[in-house]
Amino acid sequence: MSTDPRAGEAGQYVDSEILQDLLSIRSSIDNIDAALVHLLAERFKATQRVGVLKAKHRLPPADPGREKAQIARLKQLAQDAQLDPDFAEKFLNFIIEEVIRHHQAISETSGGEPDPNAPFDWADHQ
Amino acid sequence: MSTDPRAGEAGQYVDSEILQDLLSIRSSIDNIDAALVHLLAERFKATQRVGVLKAKHRLPPADPGREKAQIARLKQLAQDAQLDPDFAEKFLNFIIEEVIRHHQAISETSGGEPDPNAPFDWADHQ
Repeated sequence: MSTDPRAGEAGQYVDSEILQDLLSIRSSIDNIDAALVHLLAERFKATQRVGVLKAKHRLPPADPGREKAQIARLKQLAQDAQLDPDFAEKFLNFIIEEVIRHHQAISETSGGEPDPNAPFDWADHQ
Repeated sequence: MSTDPRAGEAGQYVDSEILQDLLSIRSSIDNIDAALVHLLAERFKATQRVGVLKAKHRLPPADPGREKAQIARLKQLAQDAQLDPDFAEKFLNFIIEEVIRHHQAISETSGGEPDPNAPFDWADHQ
């Protein structure tokens, strides 16, 4: 029913009005995704700075108190924004896994070995 | 060295100046996380609308062409923003999994069974 390339497969199944609704929502999703990617890039720049700071000063890395506070705060924010709080927690954990991977790379590159007396493992995401 | 509650464990290990640097970066991370949560909430509102639209019009759900374009676009955006493009792809897939879960719930709630002639499974994330 449509040859609009933005329609994807949906163009074969619906009339023009419904398709316009769909394309309009998809366009919003694309805008949001662009914003998410840029914010994530900025977040990794920030955690990169934390990683360098900690490697330089041989700081103990993970901070359970900070992490707990972050999760509680994000879950509350999610609830206020009508986002599933459990998903917000899963999302934070997903990001943290990536940050840990980055920080391991920083630690290896800088040749900074973890302080054996440090109480936690050498990965900071905070 | 610090009793600032925001310092977490780090307060025990570094002097005040370094701690201030750390707290400043953490504060930026917290701001970014709040923005991410709100954008994610908005994204799920948009995909919820897509889910309802598709359930209502018994549209085929997943759209491989659209998905491929989304991934290529996000990877390019990530590259421009100096974010690992593979991470951007992983991130999109992580979100899509959650959207699929939501859409299955919509489909079950609305009693709308997938059209057996639809070429894809009943989960739209686009």
